[in-house]
Amino acid sequence: MLSKNTVKFIKTLHQKKYRNQEQKFFVEGGKSVLEVLNSDFVVELLLVTEGFYESNQKILLSHQSEILKVTQKQLESVGQFQSNDSALAVVKMKTNQYFEKTDDNLVIALDDVRDPGNLGTIIRIADWYGIQHLLFSEQTAEFYNPKVIQASMGSFTRVKFYYGDLKEIFNRWNCPVYGAYLNGSNIHELSKPDQGVLLMGNESKGISDELEPFVTNKLTIPGYGHAESLNVAIATAIFCDNFKRLSIR
Amino acid sequence: MLSKNTVKFIKTLHQKKYRNQEQKFFVEGGKSVLEVLNSDFVVELLLVTEGFYESNQKILLSHQSEILKVTQKQLESVGQFQSNDSALAVVKMKTNQYFEKTDDNLVIALDDVRDPGNLGTIIRIADWYGIQHLLFSEQTAEFYNPKVIQASMGSFTRVKFYYGDLKEIFNRWNCPVYGAYLNGSNIHELSKPDQGVLLMGNESKGISDELEPFVTNKLTIPGYGHAESLNVAIATAIFCDNFKRLSIR
Repeated sequence: MLSKNTVKFIKTLHQKKYRNQEQKFFVEGGKSVLEVLNSDFVVELLLVTEGFYESNQKILLSHQSEILKVTQKQLESVGQFQSNDSALAVVKMKTNQYFEKTDDNLVIALDDVRDPGNLGTIIRIADWYGIQHLLFSEQTAEFYNPKVIQASMGSFTRVKFYYGDLKEIFNRWNCPVYGAYLNGSNIHELSKPDQGVLLMGNESKGISDELEPFVTNKLTIPGYGHAESLNVAIATAIFCDNFKRLSIR
Repeated sequence: MLSKNTVKFIKTLHQKKYRNQEQKFFVEGGKSVLEVLNSDFVVELLLVTEGFYESNQKILLSHQSEILKVTQKQLESVGQFQSNDSALAVVKMKTNQYFEKTDDNLVIALDDVRDPGNLGTIIRIADWYGIQHLLFSEQTAEFYNPKVIQASMGSFTRVKFYYGDLKEIFNRWNCPVYGAYLNGSNIHELSKPDQGVLLMGNESKGISDELEPFVTNKLTIPGYGHAESLNVAIATAIFCDNFKRLSIR
């Protein structure tokens, strides 16, 4: 039975303030819920339809989480999806955990990427390219925003991330920082890059002045037409593709 | 003076049915309005704030369109932007014009890309990479949807497009068709491609079975992690970047 209090509680998690207070967030849709169950996140509560329960009974029962059977209508009324005939999970946030830079992987750093859809898409791209570490400036969109979770298509379960002061971290790491600019060197002409950080800037302002001194290589995606810029998630994907092309061969 | 009838008329253009009936659409935001004025689209009516009028008086007066001065509040009430302190234009649609395939450029073909945000983003990517010709299956999102116009960031003014039966067209063109698949050859290993068509499929179903026989090269973006797929606009950008890298050098 889905109680009024549970409904009320999940609805508070639509707001950042309450997510932070409770240190919980929610995940919608069958595919993402299965991915979060299959990850190191701790799932506290599952709302599932009869159909989803029957198809995934074994997986669901192997978890400790409380399971409530609900109707599709109830699922849709507590979540943000227009249509959800499968499941919703209430999940514990992870603590903000610092990681060290290692030599064997690229790190993506975001300097105030504000749009949750962009952040979620970038997480999915990172996961596609096998990039596990992401650094976010304090003003970057919130990882646990439902739109970020949705856009990441389950990839949010497979990345490590840290929110912090990028200046301090770059200072400590002292490694190559490849910055995305509109007037840098042509990324197509880059030779094999040292493993370092790919730094992407804010949607309208780009990389902030205070981070520029840490950028060792300013890079640009060559344009051949008249568009002034590319969306930050699109640009991140192209950078990752170029880096992987060079590093893997 | 902004009359009630004009308000009502612009609001009908939020719906596809009325856009088709009137053969008109609207463009919001100062930058996009200036781009449409600077294009071969015919602008019929301009709603501008005093501030936008003063900054762009010369450009505005060189056009034949009717100009109405309005407040920011009025602009926001007729359009779809949450915030718009500059302008909105009512513009005539172009007729759906067929083009022939030429040897000197890549054509992007979309097989039922349904999401207007994806279509707009793909138009912006095409413009960035200097790709002027786009082919859309009949079920692809509508070019004049306000979300397409918005996501294209003005690039909608610089592309030629045709909605039609892709089977018939591919049959007629008889040129290489590079199709985006999850199990094709690695795009990083492609040698210089002949000029042809880049074909991108539907968001969930990919390229339809009936078009598969026309695909001469199945291509895939190599993944190194665990994400199952990439968003179609992201994938289009990566394909374009790889094609341009090969063709331009």
